[in-house]
Amino acid sequence: MDQQLDTPLLAFDPTDPVALTQALVRCPSVTPAEGGALALLATVLASAGYSVHRPVFSADGMPDIENLYARIGTEGPVLVIAGHSDVVPVGDAEAWTRDPFGGVIVDGVLYGRGACDMKGGLAAMISAALRFRRDNPQAPGSIAFLITGDEEGPAINGTIKLLAWAQSRGERFDHCLLGEPTNPASMSDMIKIGRRGSLTGKLTVNGKQGHVGYPHLADNPIRGMVRLLAALDATPLDGGTTHFDPSNLEVTTLDVGNPSSNVVPAQAKAVFNIRFNDSWTPETLAAEIERRLREAAGNLVRYELAFQPTNAVAFLTEPGPFVTMVADAVEAETGKRPALSTTGGTSDARFIKNYCPVVEYGVVGQTMHQIDERVAVADLTALERITHRLLDSYFALQHKP
Amino acid sequence: MDQQLDTPLLAFDPTDPVALTQALVRCPSVTPAEGGALALLATVLASAGYSVHRPVFSADGMPDIENLYARIGTEGPVLVIAGHSDVVPVGDAEAWTRDPFGGVIVDGVLYGRGACDMKGGLAAMISAALRFRRDNPQAPGSIAFLITGDEEGPAINGTIKLLAWAQSRGERFDHCLLGEPTNPASMSDMIKIGRRGSLTGKLTVNGKQGHVGYPHLADNPIRGMVRLLAALDATPLDGGTTHFDPSNLEVTTLDVGNPSSNVVPAQAKAVFNIRFNDSWTPETLAAEIERRLREAAGNLVRYELAFQPTNAVAFLTEPGPFVTMVADAVEAETGKRPALSTTGGTSDARFIKNYCPVVEYGVVGQTMHQIDERVAVADLTALERITHRLLDSYFALQHKP
Ligand SMILES: [Zn+2]
Ligand SMILES: [Zn+2]
Repeated sequence: MDQQLDTPLLAFDPTDPVALTQALVRCPSVTPAEGGALALLATVLASAGYSVHRPVFSADGMPDIENLYARIGTEGPVLVIAGHSDVVPVGDAEAWTRDPFGGVIVDGVLYGRGACDMKGGLAAMISAALRFRRDNPQAPGSIAFLITGDEEGPAINGTIKLLAWAQSRGERFDHCLLGEPTNPASMSDMIKIGRRGSLTGKLTVNGKQGHVGYPHLADNPIRGMVRLLAALDATPLDGGTTHFDPSNLEVTTLDVGNPSSNVVPAQAKAVFNIRFNDSWTPETLAAEIERRLREAAGNLVRYELAFQPTNAVAFLTEPGPFVTMVADAVEAETGKRPALSTTGGTSDARFIKNYCPVVEYGVVGQTMHQIDERVAVADLTALERITHRLLDSYFALQHKP
Repeated sequence: MDQQLDTPLLAFDPTDPVALTQALVRCPSVTPAEGGALALLATVLASAGYSVHRPVFSADGMPDIENLYARIGTEGPVLVIAGHSDVVPVGDAEAWTRDPFGGVIVDGVLYGRGACDMKGGLAAMISAALRFRRDNPQAPGSIAFLITGDEEGPAINGTIKLLAWAQSRGERFDHCLLGEPTNPASMSDMIKIGRRGSLTGKLTVNGKQGHVGYPHLADNPIRGMVRLLAALDATPLDGGTTHFDPSNLEVTTLDVGNPSSNVVPAQAKAVFNIRFNDSWTPETLAAEIERRLREAAGNLVRYELAFQPTNAVAFLTEPGPFVTMVADAVEAETGKRPALSTTGGTSDARFIKNYCPVVEYGVVGQTMHQIDERVAVADLTALERITHRLLDSYFALQHKP
């Protein structure tokens, strides 16, 4: 559907990042619900002259997911701004001190689910792009928006399919700015130039059930599990690399579920997750874990190991002109040079990096996914100015305050 | 209630251990239900001249439990034969190949819940005692039966209260034979002359919840739990004693219950049970576990340790004339001298040992608590003869086949 025609009037100015954030927060777009958020953005972008597409993707056993692709300009270079309009559930609604879908502003702080992750970032970047093209109607190149409603969910019908869909239509991207909240505490903290990979494994140790009074007739799988997990924890996976922290393994659950304190259980199960750096691929890492378990188990512990399929590889956007341009814009507006980091969880950048270099920068993420999620109004306007400054540099125009 | 008067007629000969076992198995006496089992035994014993009492014991929040005490004779020595008439639940009833309350005999094997634990043992001993007094009406001393309906349950309203009740009435016991199934495979295998103690502890390790992508902001309690459990397992508690195996610790469950593989959990919980020998009391053992955990935890692991109250201390009936008398009876009937053992789980002998020396001997326990629980008819008749022989020796009469 092309929405360049027939666009309803907006009740606010979409070049105001605060008003646009409020409008987005008021859309209850908890994954997989669209909640009106993409419809709103479609209206905003179409009104500003973007050609807008709303592809819906499906997969067996999953709800259909709405997505949005919009572009203004026909020539290169193409800077694509990526993000997601979906949010995680409210959680304990009673615990919120403000309406999670109210977008109310109290003492300069805007409250609501998605305020920082990442409706705020998305709004500030859209506002900046609208102001940039409004003030520079003859700007060269193209700006595109790649927005999914499935980042917080299984991420099956989201960015990964939207990228393939765009490519199949002949869309080519030169660089990407992903507006996830990257800053731990203040807007000058951190640009992300890569992400660690993520590998999840399930370890099952099989023993033999029996009575605790007759241990020689039983084989306690917890004993074997403790031995295997201690072995996994005994030696660091690596010492880190130039741009990455050391890889890290966390056992996230360990369950037996035996209610009887006089019974030796038959089986113990654990799940672990590894956040790994660019010294590993999922394959080399899985092989190393298998090797460590095999060595620790010897002939004593019978276990099964299974890894979840993963598309979360470790990747790095090597520092260079584009990274420098983003850091320059942040420094110019905040007075401080941000760190180039690869810490934290995964993001859709892991899909985008297969298409073009991707850098992540957004608001302060401190309250993401939490009760009373919020963003400072000043951070939204700062992000709008930083994005505007980046667009100026990227499209080689003089910055006009 | 005294049942010496007004006893109904029985449809079988109670000096036949097989018929009496069948009659008992047909009583569905799953703890806490009496199921007719104690009423049947009251009739049997009262008919044979025993004075019979049926005390009922109560405790807050628990069902009332019926018990039975019977005695024939007024002088010492008093040999008390102890046991329980309750049985564990049937389990998967569909999986039984015979009616669990049918007491059917197929190819010389009697099937049913309680066949070996311990209606069979109880029946054989009662049959033997009846035959002994029938054939020796002028036998000196007294035979008593101490039978509870709460051995497989919480054991709060059972043997422990029945012993106190008897003592308060002036009853004194010289020796006790407890008819639990002590034999692993054949009737000549094993007499139990003591039991290990049992101590159950609950270990909780507290960490700090967080995202796996930010491990420095979280503290994974599973890491600490693995460290503590590895420390408990690193060194044996002891090397065993003259009559006891080494003490043994089994972790029976370990649970976190965290469904999210990208979240570091806040807490991990484990339960462990220790079967300990006579080199420990519950108090000295708890202190040793606390010492090991404290040392392994250092300042790194925050944990809580709580022990369940226990009355299962380790105890030994030192080999001597009574133990020898039981072993002689077994050897005379089976042709093989049984081992004097202290292995296996706990039993009500831990309560009885405070009143008199106690020895345990019964049928083959292989199928106890299992689907298709069963006992060989030949083992029931052997146990009847062994008990009869023991009564002969104990009351110093010549054995008459
Ligand atoms: Zn996000
Ligand atoms: Zn029993």
